[in-house]
Amino acid sequence: LDYQHVQVPFEITLWIMLASLAKIGFHLYNKLPSVVPESCLLIFVGLIMGGIIYGLNDRSPPVMDSDIFFLYLLPPIVLDAGYFMPSRPFFENIGTILLYAVVGTIWNVFGIGFSLYGICQVKAFRLQDVSLLHNLLFGSLIAAVDPVAVLAVFEEIHVNEKLHILVFGESLLNDAVTVVLYKLFRSFCEMPTIKSVDVFAGVGKFFVVGLGGVLVGLSFGFTAAFTTRFTKDIRVIEPLFVFLYSYLSYLTAEMFHLSGIVAIISCAMGMKRYVEANISLKSHTTVKYFMKMWSSVSDTLIFIFLGVSTIGENHEWNWPYICFTVIFCLIWRALGVLVLTFFVNRFHVNTITSKDQFIIAYGGLRGAICFSLVFLLPDFHRKKLFIAATTVVILFTVFVQGMTIRPLVDLLAVKRKRESAPTVGEQIHIRFLDHLLAGIEDISGHWGQYYWKDKLEYFNSKYLQKILLREYDQPKSSIVLLYEKLERKHAIELAQAGQLGHGPAHPSFLCSAFLCSSSDRTVITDQKLEDTPNPDVLDNMQEILARNLYRIRRTGPAYNRHTLPGDSEPTEHAKEILILRHKSL
Amino acid sequence: LDYQHVQVPFEITLWIMLASLAKIGFHLYNKLPSVVPESCLLIFVGLIMGGIIYGLNDRSPPVMDSDIFFLYLLPPIVLDAGYFMPSRPFFENIGTILLYAVVGTIWNVFGIGFSLYGICQVKAFRLQDVSLLHNLLFGSLIAAVDPVAVLAVFEEIHVNEKLHILVFGESLLNDAVTVVLYKLFRSFCEMPTIKSVDVFAGVGKFFVVGLGGVLVGLSFGFTAAFTTRFTKDIRVIEPLFVFLYSYLSYLTAEMFHLSGIVAIISCAMGMKRYVEANISLKSHTTVKYFMKMWSSVSDTLIFIFLGVSTIGENHEWNWPYICFTVIFCLIWRALGVLVLTFFVNRFHVNTITSKDQFIIAYGGLRGAICFSLVFLLPDFHRKKLFIAATTVVILFTVFVQGMTIRPLVDLLAVKRKRESAPTVGEQIHIRFLDHLLAGIEDISGHWGQYYWKDKLEYFNSKYLQKILLREYDQPKSSIVLLYEKLERKHAIELAQAGQLGHGPAHPSFLCSAFLCSSSDRTVITDQKLEDTPNPDVLDNMQEILARNLYRIRRTGPAYNRHTLPGDSEPTEHAKEILILRHKSL
Repeated sequence: LDYQHVQVPFEITLWIMLASLAKIGFHLYNKLPSVVPESCLLIFVGLIMGGIIYGLNDRSPPVMDSDIFFLYLLPPIVLDAGYFMPSRPFFENIGTILLYAVVGTIWNVFGIGFSLYGICQVKAFRLQDVSLLHNLLFGSLIAAVDPVAVLAVFEEIHVNEKLHILVFGESLLNDAVTVVLYKLFRSFCEMPTIKSVDVFAGVGKFFVVGLGGVLVGLSFGFTAAFTTRFTKDIRVIEPLFVFLYSYLSYLTAEMFHLSGIVAIISCAMGMKRYVEANISLKSHTTVKYFMKMWSSVSDTLIFIFLGVSTIGENHEWNWPYICFTVIFCLIWRALGVLVLTFFVNRFHVNTITSKDQFIIAYGGLRGAICFSLVFLLPDFHRKKLFIAATTVVILFTVFVQGMTIRPLVDLLAVKRKRESAPTVGEQIHIRFLDHLLAGIEDISGHWGQYYWKDKLEYFNSKYLQKILLREYDQPKSSIVLLYEKLERKHAIELAQAGQLGHGPAHPSFLCSAFLCSSSDRTVITDQKLEDTPNPDVLDNMQEILARNLYRIRRTGPAYNRHTLPGDSEPTEHAKEILILRHKSL
Repeated sequence: LDYQHVQVPFEITLWIMLASLAKIGFHLYNKLPSVVPESCLLIFVGLIMGGIIYGLNDRSPPVMDSDIFFLYLLPPIVLDAGYFMPSRPFFENIGTILLYAVVGTIWNVFGIGFSLYGICQVKAFRLQDVSLLHNLLFGSLIAAVDPVAVLAVFEEIHVNEKLHILVFGESLLNDAVTVVLYKLFRSFCEMPTIKSVDVFAGVGKFFVVGLGGVLVGLSFGFTAAFTTRFTKDIRVIEPLFVFLYSYLSYLTAEMFHLSGIVAIISCAMGMKRYVEANISLKSHTTVKYFMKMWSSVSDTLIFIFLGVSTIGENHEWNWPYICFTVIFCLIWRALGVLVLTFFVNRFHVNTITSKDQFIIAYGGLRGAICFSLVFLLPDFHRKKLFIAATTVVILFTVFVQGMTIRPLVDLLAVKRKRESAPTVGEQIHIRFLDHLLAGIEDISGHWGQYYWKDKLEYFNSKYLQKILLREYDQPKSSIVLLYEKLERKHAIELAQAGQLGHGPAHPSFLCSAFLCSSSDRTVITDQKLEDTPNPDVLDNMQEILARNLYRIRRTGPAYNRHTLPGDSEPTEHAKEILILRHKSL
């Protein structure tokens, strides 16, 4: 037996296997996931595992290594989040999201830091040795809402799109603020004296860290898109580039102390539309599937490790400090949301309701990022207290808030996500309104979001697409793409229906084969008609389908402010008229 | 700048990126890959990279770590090979493959070892200090044909299926022999005296290592199939199990000093048909795509690293020894193939032609496995000589043999792979003959391959499928599966044709919509017929399609010796008669 040799990959594989099997286990009993969020179950599995390891070895189980978390487990989740980010609601609410992420996080950090410092002054609690700077440092790591935890809970409760993007966007973008504040306070802790220059430099860093991340991400994203222009002959490595470039953007940003999360999200959002157009359909399926799989496994591993790391002797249980931390986290977040939303609502027509505000405040879950940051703290005599407080806050938010948020959403009747995808008609109208508003903004000289969106679209179709797309001839509108997707899906469904029923599966084929020659052979037709289900209904269906498919297909390049619609050919017109006449008869 | 922190993943990502970009680069200039095999180009890139590193750092570039090779780079390639192994030709030729892999490899090891020992006795070469055992140890690592190198070259030259499987199967299965002999001689080198017991124990190990690998692989494979029974609700992690279980089988085999390659191949071949039936179509696409991608990247990295590792100061250039190694490798392989094929041909009707024999002997490429094994040798004063000889043999086989094998195949007019897939008719006849031969063997009391295959199939449908498949009701024959696949492909093609041409894309829909109601509205029909291209041809096509699709679909459960064909329903009969009548009219 040579265990040493294979230890590292063997143990990694076994952990992933455990995570996957745990996931399967939960779904075997159908009712469990609908009551308890998966994240809670996974932490519970982790607690049991940690208990077993602790019992067998009689020493603390290994804690989740911060490097492993930040370098290997976090990037897949953030990549998945960025790649599947609904860009329209995100950019429509970007101002509000940034306000929550930047001002809200700073508010929480200082609020929690100063009020905990107040608690430390109470002599009965024996906490006078915790300085203000240490409290602020602790505040900076405990204040940040965690994207992994938020995603895990909000994906299951299906609130409306705007509410979801507000909480989730905040949890992603606050990374830049957290990174800056955490590093600032940590370096202040080690400095003998703090000059006012350092404080100003810290404020300047916000912009460097955030905007630098965006720049790094976008440049890697566009390089990725450009690379996939040349993969036509070796389709098989296409998915690789999506993963490689986004991971490189994350690592590069981390290397320069910029925000890795912001970088990987910009990279994913920047490359998505170009990469999708360049790579083959199968590559795209693989990219999407693998991204989902990877993030799902990372997510599972993180929660299991959170549970495992909780067991052990790393904690100093000073209950007053811990309890006040939980309370201050709740209070300051609620206050912050209330105050900020008040300002947001003054400048928006589509306001955030009080129900939504409650869910935003209540959905501020903490997770593995706080946990990893607290272990990264330099050693000092109260580190174990901070670890204990962080663990309790995470478990409280994930278990109590995570399990009660679904009943609360039901109770408050918070507006849910619409079930159905927007119809083609809706999509056309949304597009039309966008152009209209862009035009109005242009005429009135107001540089609003529609104006900028239009300018960006123009720049994209004029320059970017020509450089980044392989087969660039006409801009394919999202409606045409949607139609293509629907048609493909429909075709596959047809084929599958053919497999499942052993009877005549392609009614169109069979029916047409018979009825095409029905005019003179009525004997066969009559016998046939008894077998096929409702030939009239079938005729009708096919007619509608044929007319609609034909019409949408004819649409071709979408309407665009910068192109003139080309004259459709006369034969096409003739066909359409024929179809319409056929319908009216 | 904090490079230390991200160094490991950053450098790994950069190497993979380099490998992928190199692959793209070769394919940009179309003529290059058709003349020079990709493996040669990649080694060349590696040589340049190595030269640059050597020039900049003024010390040897890092050599490929044997652990990295065996634990991370080799498994994806072998998994890919095992998963996509054409099982029919493989099992038809299993006897010949095993003869080449076991007896042929032993023949080569001892042939090369003893004749190199003879060379060492020539005083002029100054090699008297290389003992017989060291020569045999060197023989054991240089004799093995390398699956990675063989696959890289043979995938490009498209020889006939039997020839391909003979060379490729040998290169995979000789791993068990190589592992045993290499470890045996290495332990002999370290022992003071060798007893005859040790030699017998060595012979016994062959069976343990080989059969143990098969057992480990099959048990993991069946566990994987069983696990995928329960993934219906979480489709997204299905692909993971395929990778996790096969990797675990490899690691477990390596841990017990069994043959990891044999284990992962048995695992992949064992689980394939059950996993494919259990997982969703998209999961399956992802599995296949990712496997191909991963093996392609591993392959690229291996050849690049081979090139990089060649540069440096690890070599002792004793040219007589090196040249004779190359010559003996060629001679002993040629002799071995001739002698073994002579015996094989005496017992087979379908003989191996002399052209095929030449290609088998000539296709014995050496690669990264030899290279990694030579670096794993314990330190002794002639290790650098062995490294130099191995490097030269690899470069010689990959460059000279790899580049000339394609012209030679053309020149000798070796039978090529048939371009088209077998028709449904052929498949039915093959199946029919299989059953016939199984019956003949059963009656005559001869336990041949058809008899065993039939018994295995019976065991599979009676027990294994019931345990391992989720939706087990009727055994789906490969023909029905093929038909489903064709129908799906056809449907997607239809949908895509609809996107590309902006005219009427679904002729069946349009045509049927019009012609269904053509009996009384002749005006429209006449006008319409002018527009559609050749309505008669279209009718004809649809008729043929409808008839054929319908008929194959009706086949249902395949013919099976162990089931009686169920009576088809009377309505189905009536329909078929109608169709036939319709045809005859």
